[in-house]
Amino acid sequence: MRALEEKILKDGRVSGNDILKVDNFLNHQLDIAFLNEIGKEFKERFKDKKIDKILTIEASGIAIASIASQHFGSVPVVFAKKVESKNLDKDVYETKVYSFTKGKEYSVKVSKKYLNKDENILVIDDFLANGRAAIGLKDLVDQSEANLVGIGIVIEKGFQEGRELLETRGVRLESLAILDSIENGKINFRQL
Amino acid sequence: MRALEEKILKDGRVSGNDILKVDNFLNHQLDIAFLNEIGKEFKERFKDKKIDKILTIEASGIAIASIASQHFGSVPVVFAKKVESKNLDKDVYETKVYSFTKGKEYSVKVSKKYLNKDENILVIDDFLANGRAAIGLKDLVDQSEANLVGIGIVIEKGFQEGRELLETRGVRLESLAILDSIENGKINFRQL
Repeated sequence: MRALEEKILKDGRVSGNDILKVDNFLNHQLDIAFLNEIGKEFKERFKDKKIDKILTIEASGIAIASIASQHFGSVPVVFAKKVESKNLDKDVYETKVYSFTKGKEYSVKVSKKYLNKDENILVIDDFLANGRAAIGLKDLVDQSEANLVGIGIVIEKGFQEGRELLETRGVRLESLAILDSIENGKINFRQL
Repeated sequence: MRALEEKILKDGRVSGNDILKVDNFLNHQLDIAFLNEIGKEFKERFKDKKIDKILTIEASGIAIASIASQHFGSVPVVFAKKVESKNLDKDVYETKVYSFTKGKEYSVKVSKKYLNKDENILVIDDFLANGRAAIGLKDLVDQSEANLVGIGIVIEKGFQEGRELLETRGVRLESLAILDSIENGKINFRQL
């Protein structure tokens, strides 16, 4: 998505060879008009599919998924909750996700009421890097026997293993921008 | 807001004499079409005011604020982050909020880049009960020398002290539904 690449070059900030900060439009301050462009593009990518519900994870995915929903007929959005690894509840689907950023494992939960057998679920999130959060969301969908239509990602770090882990599991992955590398402060996007 | 009261009666679940769960449309599963009705009503309540930015707090406020922004010309949304009370960063405004639900204090932070002097800020959140989170958000706005235009709340627990604490601080508060009491599973709304 050309407009997203331009936005990243204009507003993103690079740190070292693997960190891209986009907190001025995507995950702290939110550019709502631009999120609508992102939502429109997700619809374009998945226009051949019936989507019953969008699943995301708190906190950064919520705005993206909510605005995107409007381009899919305002289907319900469900956000999975991150919680510390205790406090098991029988009425939830739960999975464990290891965070490399935080160096620890956490639990991700969704109430069983909000993922149902045979529903067509689109997962949306802001970043894909090592893929652990995305695999966790897939696991929640699988537990509910709903149907994972695909995963839509705003920014993929193409130099990490997320895509491979998802594709070997048969997941359809659509990333709106893919970073092939960050070298000396310069971002190289994958040419598609 | 009559439609919201009807939605609460239809979809909300009451527990004891002070808990109302609305996780099937407001804070776990999100009814995006209904959030647009809420956003429209916030615009109606604040139509006399210039709003430059909407401030909310993760996680439940994010969807509400993002959808509402579209009714205010898609102004930027900033969500304050809840973090454990360590990890001080010089580039943030920070305040402490005591959570009665969790029985502990946590820090709430916003990057200094995203709240600026003289900006007109509307705070939006899902619930108002004892008012501590709202006062924390007001404190962040005050630290930045921005102008707090008002606070928009979806559901106010009118039997707790939030409104009094905010009004004695001169805050304009607009709640779309106010619960006067919950008795024997029945919700009594304040007649306005």
